[in-house]
Amino acid sequence: MAPQQGTLLSYRPDIKVVDATLRDGGLVNSFYFTDEFVKNLYKANIKAGVDYMEFGYKASKELFDVTKFGKWKFCDEEHIREIVGDNDTKLKLSVMADVGRTDLESDIIDKKDSVIDLVRVATYINTIPAAIDMAEYCKAKGYETSINIMAISTASDKDIRQALELIGQSGVDMIYIVDSYGSMYPEQIRELAEMYMEIGGKYGKTIGMHAHNNQQMAFANTIEATTHGVSMLDATMCGMGRGAGNCAMEALLGFLKNPKYKIAPVLRFIQDNMLKLREEGLVWGYDIPYLLTGILNVHPRSAIECIKQNNTDYLDFYQNLWDKEC
Amino acid sequence: MAPQQGTLLSYRPDIKVVDATLRDGGLVNSFYFTDEFVKNLYKANIKAGVDYMEFGYKASKELFDVTKFGKWKFCDEEHIREIVGDNDTKLKLSVMADVGRTDLESDIIDKKDSVIDLVRVATYINTIPAAIDMAEYCKAKGYETSINIMAISTASDKDIRQALELIGQSGVDMIYIVDSYGSMYPEQIRELAEMYMEIGGKYGKTIGMHAHNNQQMAFANTIEATTHGVSMLDATMCGMGRGAGNCAMEALLGFLKNPKYKIAPVLRFIQDNMLKLREEGLVWGYDIPYLLTGILNVHPRSAIECIKQNNTDYLDFYQNLWDKEC
Repeated sequence: MAPQQGTLLSYRPDIKVVDATLRDGGLVNSFYFTDEFVKNLYKANIKAGVDYMEFGYKASKELFDVTKFGKWKFCDEEHIREIVGDNDTKLKLSVMADVGRTDLESDIIDKKDSVIDLVRVATYINTIPAAIDMAEYCKAKGYETSINIMAISTASDKDIRQALELIGQSGVDMIYIVDSYGSMYPEQIRELAEMYMEIGGKYGKTIGMHAHNNQQMAFANTIEATTHGVSMLDATMCGMGRGAGNCAMEALLGFLKNPKYKIAPVLRFIQDNMLKLREEGLVWGYDIPYLLTGILNVHPRSAIECIKQNNTDYLDFYQNLWDKEC
Repeated sequence: MAPQQGTLLSYRPDIKVVDATLRDGGLVNSFYFTDEFVKNLYKANIKAGVDYMEFGYKASKELFDVTKFGKWKFCDEEHIREIVGDNDTKLKLSVMADVGRTDLESDIIDKKDSVIDLVRVATYINTIPAAIDMAEYCKAKGYETSINIMAISTASDKDIRQALELIGQSGVDMIYIVDSYGSMYPEQIRELAEMYMEIGGKYGKTIGMHAHNNQQMAFANTIEATTHGVSMLDATMCGMGRGAGNCAMEALLGFLKNPKYKIAPVLRFIQDNMLKLREEGLVWGYDIPYLLTGILNVHPRSAIECIKQNNTDYLDFYQNLWDKEC
């Protein structure tokens, strides 16, 4: 086992925190956040010392109906600027682009004309070459770039190693471990983190972690990854994200020892902004159906449906899941 | 770092699961569980392959008013027998005795006359000698015994080592790591587990883990301890327990690979019995005030009060906590 990086009392200056509340949380409310919410989130992230704020997706308007989603599904430059102006702050801005779902030529403008700093390309392991093409395109436009390999819990070690070698040889800056199904335990994250650090590290890539909370492991897996050298850490306010949600920002900032991180602005943001979302009926976070999709290492879509229908026959849900998906 | 014990595909036959739903969950409802609930829990534990079921406390009727608590605060032999008969099953039965709060002479009868198998003595680190006396008394009566050192996150390594040596030299069978404040991270649990295994192991003691979920780490910390040789694992249905609650049984059984453990009876028990408790107004489980007492490593009592009052001014709560407790 590789030696632990960092201790509980010291801090690693290479660690960066990415707020993905709008992007992953947007999957809960179809990206319909009010401007007030987004402005408050932006201000809270700046005060809290968060390093990157992800505004949403750069989704293709050819493929998605703009009347059916809030604007953060598309992240037009002008909409981001309405929130951040020229973003004359230390907080960097990020967007996500799904492989095959972004119109690069029309929607990714030159970095010199954009307030966006980082474009993260989300891909499954079987579309890595397309993801590299997209990331290289964005890199050439002047952006920092990341490739986020989703659903890594269903990929073989051999495929992951090959993917890491391919990305390693590209111009991409960062590679993310993404536990889309929230099915992984810390000892698996440890092994993955070591593999990513070994191959990614050889090529000078930064490694990131994006966790889901199906088994109440999002925070634990995030800090486990950190312990093995992973340095880009995704979190969201109150863990807001699809299904069981993500690593909670308030928990992560309570753990990190770098004095630049402040928990108070996050607490204030939560009490003034996040609680309303729940009152308005938005539902996310750990629940037993998510635990069960996590245990079986399958997509949470059936658990989301189960919870939407207030179905609490967990045993029946579990048996059906087993029959259908395993 | 000591080598990992066990792998994700194999299982360790030494691992035992302890259901503490009535005991720790009893702190949520003053031990007022219906007989139907307790009988169903008993049956579910048997079917699920759980190794021990803790019925509650053996609290002194001199010190506590029996009209103010349900019967599982006292665990009279006759009340347990009304549920289990002679308990002609593989499921062992346990009770907890707090140091200084149990009338040993009157309430701990000879094992040959009791269906109880295990007496767990709960102590703070400064009352270890009294705890050892109590445990030795129970041992002499014929019971398996455990000493559960609470609030370990506030004890010094030197004191813990000394306590482990003292207990090691006694006749006590098991020693528990108890993260009462839910303040510990997996890397701290790793270090503690190694210390307990090193000293306890020298004396042939079994080591246990009782986690709290203030920082959503109860399950993660429990399996982290397991990885380092800890083998008595506490869990409760839906994580029911004081404040943020405990490691969830459904998550733990989903992780353990021993085929004797079955998740289906647990799911059935939860949907038929646990959901009602929440509908009736009982509140437990992760929430931000618990996260904050966890981060500050203090007793969750103020967080319990905060949540009871529906106080969502988390920042004010945090500042007050800091002023009062740190």
